[in-house]
Amino acid sequence: MNTSLEIAKKLLEIEAVKVNFSNPFTWTSGLRSPIYCDNRKTLSYPAIRTLIMDAYIDAIKTHFSTVEVIAGVATAGIAQGAIIAQTMQLPYCYVRPEPKKHGMKNQIEGYLIPQSKTILIEDLISTGMSSLKAVEAVKEENSEVLGVLSIFNYDFDIAKNAFEEADCKFYSLCNLDDLIKAAIEMNYMKSEDIQSLEAWRADAALWSSNFIAMSQQ
Amino acid sequence: MNTSLEIAKKLLEIEAVKVNFSNPFTWTSGLRSPIYCDNRKTLSYPAIRTLIMDAYIDAIKTHFSTVEVIAGVATAGIAQGAIIAQTMQLPYCYVRPEPKKHGMKNQIEGYLIPQSKTILIEDLISTGMSSLKAVEAVKEENSEVLGVLSIFNYDFDIAKNAFEEADCKFYSLCNLDDLIKAAIEMNYMKSEDIQSLEAWRADAALWSSNFIAMSQQ
Repeated sequence: MNTSLEIAKKLLEIEAVKVNFSNPFTWTSGLRSPIYCDNRKTLSYPAIRTLIMDAYIDAIKTHFSTVEVIAGVATAGIAQGAIIAQTMQLPYCYVRPEPKKHGMKNQIEGYLIPQSKTILIEDLISTGMSSLKAVEAVKEENSEVLGVLSIFNYDFDIAKNAFEEADCKFYSLCNLDDLIKAAIEMNYMKSEDIQSLEAWRADAALWSSNFIAMSQQ
Repeated sequence: MNTSLEIAKKLLEIEAVKVNFSNPFTWTSGLRSPIYCDNRKTLSYPAIRTLIMDAYIDAIKTHFSTVEVIAGVATAGIAQGAIIAQTMQLPYCYVRPEPKKHGMKNQIEGYLIPQSKTILIEDLISTGMSSLKAVEAVKEENSEVLGVLSIFNYDFDIAKNAFEEADCKFYSLCNLDDLIKAAIEMNYMKSEDIQSLEAWRADAALWSSNFIAMSQQ
């Protein structure tokens, strides 16, 4: 089976991805979304966690074979990043989106070897902003960022543009297309919900404001 | 070699433990301390990270052989917890000291299997408060906490009393005694500094207030 589709099916099976069309989730940004993705749930299932780890390692070998250091993006990327680094026997550190407020005020935790070729392990790319903040933090420590890998990607244009502007490569193990394919194969969603999800992907802000307007009628 | 002593030496070697007697570190609580421990640095050294992981797994097999779930205490315990869970092929989750402020407001990230026998992986025990907050969070989800394991322990009475009061077992891979032994063997500290460290361990609050009084003269 196609690995991306297999991972998408597992995300739906264990409800790491949840959908709700009648009462959409509210993201931190205020955006209403019919989909909520919590990839951390995969950590609780050793076989799925290993499937995802193996897919990350395949992607690293394909796209970033010269990698010297693995860095997890805090907090959701820390655990997967650590098991990847341990399996590959590479140095590991993790990167906070902002510097810690007390103690040593570290933004990068662990020792980042100077001048090292680093890749960042993220769980999810939505706007790409948190990944790119972590990329900046690594660059400020004079290390090279080969790119960012995530489990899931909503495939928003805003993320694609932001990564291009930052001249940063990124790859994801699966995306919204895979999720829609998986949902169809699993009879997980009604066809009208799949249409709604596609409309949301095409213009999430419009979908969100339409939902809010409809619910206020 | 004694594993505790070996780990203590590695912590000093890579400066995961730093000492400074002329300008002691200021902890989050305001306490001045001649010692600062950042075990996250061990993540960047695959051989040391594996030594520590193996010592955790030995401790788990000795003290908590019925464990069903590994939980890391956020953020410093997340990475070590994850590689332990992966090596033991056990479910994994991590626990924040406080619930997350946005999104799903989770305190436990990942799926904590109900009624499961859980152990918590911590990096460091000082007062024990952050560990015990995580213990409470796991218990509130109706899981059993077999105990807490940490890399390092300052061996403060306040921590020992707090764990006893919470009826929670705890073990550490090494402690301040091991560190002092390692420092002596490595000629890492002057004998007057070792005496100062022992005075600090005996009464850290007194040591701290004496230091502040002296430095204001």
